[in-house]
Amino acid sequence: MSGPLLPREELEARLRAIGAERYHSLHPFHRLLHDGRLNKGQVQAWALNRYYYQASIPAKDASLLARLPTTALRREWRRRLEDHDGDGSKPGGVERWLRLTGGLGLDEGYVTSLQGLLPATRFAVDAYVHFVRERTVLEAVASSLTEMFSPAIISERVSGMLRAYDFVDEATLAYFTPRLTQAPQDVAFALDYVAEEARTREQQEAVMAALRFKCDLLWAQLDALHHAYVAPGLPPPGAFVPEAFAPGARVAEPA
Amino acid sequence: MSGPLLPREELEARLRAIGAERYHSLHPFHRLLHDGRLNKGQVQAWALNRYYYQASIPAKDASLLARLPTTALRREWRRRLEDHDGDGSKPGGVERWLRLTGGLGLDEGYVTSLQGLLPATRFAVDAYVHFVRERTVLEAVASSLTEMFSPAIISERVSGMLRAYDFVDEATLAYFTPRLTQAPQDVAFALDYVAEEARTREQQEAVMAALRFKCDLLWAQLDALHHAYVAPGLPPPGAFVPEAFAPGARVAEPA
Repeated sequence: MSGPLLPREELEARLRAIGAERYHSLHPFHRLLHDGRLNKGQVQAWALNRYYYQASIPAKDASLLARLPTTALRREWRRRLEDHDGDGSKPGGVERWLRLTGGLGLDEGYVTSLQGLLPATRFAVDAYVHFVRERTVLEAVASSLTEMFSPAIISERVSGMLRAYDFVDEATLAYFTPRLTQAPQDVAFALDYVAEEARTREQQEAVMAALRFKCDLLWAQLDALHHAYVAPGLPPPGAFVPEAFAPGARVAEPA
Repeated sequence: MSGPLLPREELEARLRAIGAERYHSLHPFHRLLHDGRLNKGQVQAWALNRYYYQASIPAKDASLLARLPTTALRREWRRRLEDHDGDGSKPGGVERWLRLTGGLGLDEGYVTSLQGLLPATRFAVDAYVHFVRERTVLEAVASSLTEMFSPAIISERVSGMLRAYDFVDEATLAYFTPRLTQAPQDVAFALDYVAEEARTREQQEAVMAALRFKCDLLWAQLDALHHAYVAPGLPPPGAFVPEAFAPGARVAEPA
């Protein structure tokens, strides 16, 4: 793909169009989650699998940090690491995610052992870590741009889940609150970066491909959850099986 | 996991037990495929996605070849590469797979472009290539042991598909015939290798974990196909959509 360099507004518009077509907020599993149409076991499966994504984010950021060429860039990425790993006084994103899985009644040792993880979750998340380790810094930064679309989904998720599920409360969902301010800060930096550093149309296309790749791996995680726990509801051998789970269990009717 | 070193027969029995629990011959999608309960578009989706697996096998084998320490080992793996890449006179496995996709009416340029590939296929296959590149040679060799279980599934697949589908003939399925003799040869070598080279129980456990990992990634590919093209039948954005495909299309009734 080639052509003339796109003006910044046009590049941004195309990035937003990728989100409008592919971001996982459009996935049926997310609609079920937010609308309160999942049972507790299905929400547990989501949180358990998403734990591996959350726990891999700082590993991904650290491998990018190790490749960044300037103090300013490393400082920015060090801040992201702190958001996810905490600083010893305030908890980071990974710790807050474990409050969510704990609040849902999952044993922390079981969650962090990854024993019940869907293999497809592992493959998708590992693909992200490998991408950030192996592609150009420009593509690695661009793959973080899904945060452009996350504040909307987070607000919707938190309010929907609080309304719909009696097994969820604000403390359980405390993961999300800081993300509402962290994500826009991350995005502003990453958007400026790709707008400046993509100096050819080929590089701009690589930026868009990186965002598409990231949307695909988020989507694939929900496909796997949907297949295993919603319809047909067939967890692969060895994966988490919720209590009282019937193979092929269907979506609960709205309460 | 530790314990006493297992005798060879016990190690082999445990490896066979892993196949009996996790090999993808047990997946509902395979049953549908072999029983003639898929429509042509669904068989196309299977062949299209599996192409990426086939095309990645020689890349995987080449990266293992590059790490093998002896002439004897490299010669064995060079033979495998020849099986998959051909020798210029007889076609290799990748070329034979393209006859299958071509026989099913898929354009070769489209297949090899990977444009319509399910992202989950890419993540699972790439996980395999990364595993072979990054783990010990012992684990890399062990991950090829799924061939222990493949002759049975191949015979069943070929006879079932020839009987069930009028859009499939022996020329289309020519991929599989040489595999019936190649796979047992590959397995005999790999089984001897892991039996001799796993000299501690920990190494034997690593061999079993490698086989489980390999089963998981084959299974995950069928999960993704099932979700996208059978039930609920929701291909992710950008993936192959068969002609006359209705979202959520169900399995065809047996003919």
